[in-house]
Amino acid sequence: MVEYAKRMENVKASDIRELLKITDRPGMISFAGGLPAPELFPVERLKDVMVKVLESSGADALQYASTEGYAPLRLKIAERMNSRYGTCLTEDNILITCGSQQGLDFTGKIFLNEEDVVLCESPTYLGAINAFNAYRPRMIEVPTDNDGMLLNELEHILDTADNIKLVYTIPDFQNPSGRSWSQKRRQGFMELMAGRDIPVVEDSPYSELRFDGDMLPSLKSFDKDGNVIYLGTFSKVFCPGMRIGWVAAEKKILEKYVLIKQGADLHSAGITQRNVSMYMDMFDLDEDISMIRSVYKKRRDAMYNAICEEFPKGTRFTYPQGGLFTWVELDGEIDTRDLLAECLEHNVAFVPGESFFPNGGGKNTMRLNYSNMSEDKINEGIKLLGGIIRKKLQ
Amino acid sequence: MVEYAKRMENVKASDIRELLKITDRPGMISFAGGLPAPELFPVERLKDVMVKVLESSGADALQYASTEGYAPLRLKIAERMNSRYGTCLTEDNILITCGSQQGLDFTGKIFLNEEDVVLCESPTYLGAINAFNAYRPRMIEVPTDNDGMLLNELEHILDTADNIKLVYTIPDFQNPSGRSWSQKRRQGFMELMAGRDIPVVEDSPYSELRFDGDMLPSLKSFDKDGNVIYLGTFSKVFCPGMRIGWVAAEKKILEKYVLIKQGADLHSAGITQRNVSMYMDMFDLDEDISMIRSVYKKRRDAMYNAICEEFPKGTRFTYPQGGLFTWVELDGEIDTRDLLAECLEHNVAFVPGESFFPNGGGKNTMRLNYSNMSEDKINEGIKLLGGIIRKKLQ
Repeated sequence: MVEYAKRMENVKASDIRELLKITDRPGMISFAGGLPAPELFPVERLKDVMVKVLESSGADALQYASTEGYAPLRLKIAERMNSRYGTCLTEDNILITCGSQQGLDFTGKIFLNEEDVVLCESPTYLGAINAFNAYRPRMIEVPTDNDGMLLNELEHILDTADNIKLVYTIPDFQNPSGRSWSQKRRQGFMELMAGRDIPVVEDSPYSELRFDGDMLPSLKSFDKDGNVIYLGTFSKVFCPGMRIGWVAAEKKILEKYVLIKQGADLHSAGITQRNVSMYMDMFDLDEDISMIRSVYKKRRDAMYNAICEEFPKGTRFTYPQGGLFTWVELDGEIDTRDLLAECLEHNVAFVPGESFFPNGGGKNTMRLNYSNMSEDKINEGIKLLGGIIRKKLQ
Repeated sequence: MVEYAKRMENVKASDIRELLKITDRPGMISFAGGLPAPELFPVERLKDVMVKVLESSGADALQYASTEGYAPLRLKIAERMNSRYGTCLTEDNILITCGSQQGLDFTGKIFLNEEDVVLCESPTYLGAINAFNAYRPRMIEVPTDNDGMLLNELEHILDTADNIKLVYTIPDFQNPSGRSWSQKRRQGFMELMAGRDIPVVEDSPYSELRFDGDMLPSLKSFDKDGNVIYLGTFSKVFCPGMRIGWVAAEKKILEKYVLIKQGADLHSAGITQRNVSMYMDMFDLDEDISMIRSVYKKRRDAMYNAICEEFPKGTRFTYPQGGLFTWVELDGEIDTRDLLAECLEHNVAFVPGESFFPNGGGKNTMRLNYSNMSEDKINEGIKLLGGIIRKKLQ
């Protein structure tokens, strides 16, 4: 038997990705994944885009390329961010990554020694927990309410815990909770972090998918110290199969990400970077995003209404103003892992919430995705799910 | 100032990639990179391939996908390896990675604790040194001759050094030396490693690019213990801008790579994986490889003959039987870093050999690439280079 590094003890299969293998089977109504709606992918347009990329870039698109990424795409990303989020970035602040998952892994690699502390929302994104775990940190969960991290709790932890090396946040339509931070909380958070020299990760895959209300400024836009590291991606507003995400950070910090990317995979595929860039030249990505928003909004409504109707009285759940997920807290008697086993037999699936608590807990919670299912299926699936839950509580 | 993890002290910019930024300028004759010849990339054919992928796979090609990779491509890779290298693999032994560089990074992450020992050839591939360095190992260089690692030296190290967790090898047309291991040395090496429970990495990006003689069996084909981890890539036989490589290993070991890939970037782009697979369905990749081989062979000949002609008597250099590089040892007086500075002024570039020795040394060596330059330019560049060297020795 070969011997593995100690860190491998901490590296486990993602529950969600293992679950997705089961929920792939025909007939299953799955609220488990975090998949965008594939019927909205611009398949036909991409044929023209890809041909055009090869016509205009030729062999350059297929050769080794710079680690930082394709410059015109980095420029477009900087400009989009500046116009939407109140940031002040240039292409030199942008590194292209293989989805924002790669940005999470690099963040762990750059900042975390064994036993260092990461602060995160409670619950938080499973993919971030998995990425950070390989660097063997201790994760401290900051209690949250509907408006984001509770600042007095955060302040107490900041003042009392040692070796805090990172604060990990998802301010917009959080995965898994579907909640968003209020403007006031964003400001207060950044004031609290000021002068502490602790990097803040703003993981922001869903921010453009707002259904209700106005877009709020990003944490990065309040970033006077230059310590906010913004992770973006085209996976939810374009298509995930291109694997194009980015890190936006001050140059000094970004340099570290570039070095790590060099050793990790040299650079992201030139061809897919150019596809995304060319798509934005040839078509109006914002129009596509509007379409995605309007479809998801209807699905959010369908799911919300169905839960109101079908789930037992007293169930708590979020009304997400955007994004892909809602979050349900059931009666404390119910363990959603047991519930899932039963639900899979009835061809309906979700993710048990426990996976999103790095230190355990949340046994009565579940994450439900609405972006990947038609309104009819949402109604059918939630009815099924509600029935099973009610029966369990009888 | 934010604080970085200790490992960042070990992570440095790759000399080559930094150098490539300079050698990009017009008029430069660069033997520095390891770039394939872009004029051989099948740009026109890829237009048809990409359209066909979108026609046949549609939105599936653009959605999130399995971490292991696109099954038909994994099957093709296993079958190609079995027919060429005498291995006995199925698709379940294959994980698709973002180039073989990602396989190197994952290898470090899976096997190396701080201060663990990696054995490697001396000199060895800079990209591997960079990838492993992030995990803070100690590298012990095994002396080599024209036939590979010296087995008595290797045996001595295996018997005396503690904490050896990995042996890293490039048996075919090694980067940087251009040398290949003889069949006898391959067998002897695997006999020596038998029963030791130490994983062996066989990094094999160039093995299909043999100009002279017969293809030799891979180390993986002698792998009775199941400890050989083979890293392959389409970068040198197709095009690097797709960033499609793979890890081939026994299932128990491969599982660890899959877990690490999950946390690192979820999966490689579905669209580029399908492009490679579809290309192999629609066209004869082996014919392309024959063409690449015949072009590179001429360039190898041009470079070899020019060096014989233009470099000072007594210079030692390899006659590579395949791959992209030759390796030159100059008179001991010459420091090739100083030489490079002078050469850049005269618009000719190479990589100083020192970068390929993880523990320093090789100041009088250089790596020369011949795949990326026409025969005329090779003649012109080597003449220029030879002139500068001769002048330095006067």
